[in-house]
Amino acid sequence: MTIQRITIVGTGLIGASAGLALRAARFPGEIVGWDRNPSHLQIALDRGAIDASALDPISAAVSSDLVLLSGPVFAIQDWMGRLAPLLKPHQLVTDVGSVKVAIAECAQPLFGGPGQAGFLPGHPMAGKEVSGAEHADAELFAHAVWLFTEFAGHPLAVEWRSWVERFGCRIMDIQAARHDEICAWVSHLPQFLSTALSAMLEDRFADAPDLRAIGGRALREMTRLGASPYTMWRDVAHTNTETIAEALLALEQRLAHLRENLKTPELRDEFERANRFRTNT
Amino acid sequence: MTIQRITIVGTGLIGASAGLALRAARFPGEIVGWDRNPSHLQIALDRGAIDASALDPISAAVSSDLVLLSGPVFAIQDWMGRLAPLLKPHQLVTDVGSVKVAIAECAQPLFGGPGQAGFLPGHPMAGKEVSGAEHADAELFAHAVWLFTEFAGHPLAVEWRSWVERFGCRIMDIQAARHDEICAWVSHLPQFLSTALSAMLEDRFADAPDLRAIGGRALREMTRLGASPYTMWRDVAHTNTETIAEALLALEQRLAHLRENLKTPELRDEFERANRFRTNT
Repeated sequence: MTIQRITIVGTGLIGASAGLALRAARFPGEIVGWDRNPSHLQIALDRGAIDASALDPISAAVSSDLVLLSGPVFAIQDWMGRLAPLLKPHQLVTDVGSVKVAIAECAQPLFGGPGQAGFLPGHPMAGKEVSGAEHADAELFAHAVWLFTEFAGHPLAVEWRSWVERFGCRIMDIQAARHDEICAWVSHLPQFLSTALSAMLEDRFADAPDLRAIGGRALREMTRLGASPYTMWRDVAHTNTETIAEALLALEQRLAHLRENLKTPELRDEFERANRFRTNT
Repeated sequence: MTIQRITIVGTGLIGASAGLALRAARFPGEIVGWDRNPSHLQIALDRGAIDASALDPISAAVSSDLVLLSGPVFAIQDWMGRLAPLLKPHQLVTDVGSVKVAIAECAQPLFGGPGQAGFLPGHPMAGKEVSGAEHADAELFAHAVWLFTEFAGHPLAVEWRSWVERFGCRIMDIQAARHDEICAWVSHLPQFLSTALSAMLEDRFADAPDLRAIGGRALREMTRLGASPYTMWRDVAHTNTETIAEALLALEQRLAHLRENLKTPELRDEFERANRFRTNT
């Protein structure tokens, strides 16, 4: 049993990059794509990320072996609900959503049961602060971690994982709750932190055109994710709210602690802890 | 009048990079170096950042046209006090310290008066999270801003500024108080933020070896400065305390605001402000 036809629903940055990565890895089958934004779909087609654009994503999915759902979490959940009743057990749906408990809960009644298609929840830890197929890159996933939060096997799951490995990814299996916890601290927190920092500087220094030049690389890196699109992160904020709020509160307290110790030896201890974190990289 | 002999006091990352940049820009004179750490001095010599290592930095400085003071703010102030009584009006001292009001206050009674040497307070907005001459780079200052906070002219100041331009820098003149304010927000805040974030993650996830791999580029960028040395930043914390504390408090409040609005339309407004900050880059 092999994957011969893939439909990518959502040919934005990640979906189109997956198509390009499949091609670079010499996937021999057909890749059909769809996006609710016709121009994004056209760019994905023009760039060779997909072989054909689907007029009707549902009929494309129904005639595919594997369906890759790419986009914000709520859009992925929406497609899960629409496709599940139409797919068969030999078919596999996989996703790239940033939050996994909400996806797993959505999948539970819809997939993996008798007569139902399979579902493999996935999350490539790669991305850019810019969106859209024009920024897609076959190398986007190289050296990145691709997380999977469902261990139970579907016949096609092993094959999809082997394609992911051929993208240059390191595959890691993790429980959905642990995924959402870790991602809250190492992915969602950096995003919301960068957004808050960028927004604050915009409010305070919008009239200081030289600010960014003065800030240099440090400022550029710390605010890079400030360019990230709201539509993508709104769904993360809505579906992993409590864990993200916990991480934000912890950082607020940590900043207050450092602020109160700018002139005490505790500052040295804090630098030493931070140095250790980086040394262990 | 030209600069024929330069003494670099402190041949660490910045001092040795300045030496390499002078050489790359075909500075025809002699560059003498000194560092309190003999092995750092040897590395600077081995790498060609300096022509000779001074056994006695004071006699080297006394026989130089220009003295470049490089290191933490308190070390720079210390050298200013030791050298000022020995130097003559035809000589110029310049520095690369991260805080400028404290340097300017220190310079005021020591330099620029009758019979005193000149002082040109400078600050290249370039650096790395690692220190030492082994990481020095002739290209470190390329495309960076080099700030000067003293407009009054010394005959050699114009010439030093022209060398800095040949390093590939954009020179900007700014008042010392405005320098310390802007740097608190775009340089010191990113540093202390990255330190706090790294230290917090070290405390919470020291036992999760895969954490950094999962975090990927976003985490790597946001914690890069966590590797920065305490000795350098202690002096910044001590000499720009109030402005840094103000910036930290503002960020704490901004994070709390975002945390309280993870599920409200205010989150969209915050992303739009952040997007604007990045668009105006």
